[in-house]
Amino acid sequence: MDWKVKIKVMLKKSILDPQGQAVEDGLEALGYNNVSEVKVGKHLELSIEDVATEEELEEQVEEMCERLLANPVIEDYTFQVEEMEG
Amino acid sequence: MDWKVKIKVMLKKSILDPQGQAVEDGLEALGYNNVSEVKVGKHLELSIEDVATEEELEEQVEEMCERLLANPVIEDYTFQVEEMEG
Repeated sequence: MDWKVKIKVMLKKSILDPQGQAVEDGLEALGYNNVSEVKVGKHLELSIEDVATEEELEEQVEEMCERLLANPVIEDYTFQVEEMEG
Repeated sequence: MDWKVKIKVMLKKSILDPQGQAVEDGLEALGYNNVSEVKVGKHLELSIEDVATEEELEEQVEEMCERLLANPVIEDYTFQVEEMEG
């Protein structure tokens, strides 16, 4: 079966987010003074083919996140999977 | 009212995604040969306070995306809003 996977990678809550701070400062400079707690992370979308079960797929995605897509020391990830038609 | 906003910013479909290609190559080098169509974008989360209605909030978020958070020439954005309790 073929799958569509969406992965969100964000810095752990305890880690300083300088990119988020920069965006917050930029928004404030434009006059948006009611914005706070800006966090910036990554969003990945990808297709995976030839995986039989959702369980097996989740194993592969977790492994890919741990090995390449996220830095598990400083980042958390979550993902959603969806079976593709056809 | 206070709000939590999640924004996804991705390159438009017609724009080459070199970061996605790099991730795809990296995954392939690790032995994941069943992965394709990798797209990499941004995920932002932020809090906005003192906006009375969801309509008004959506206007502000769209404006922030057009002016700073996304590059409308090459990127598309979508967002979800959620009212915060308290």
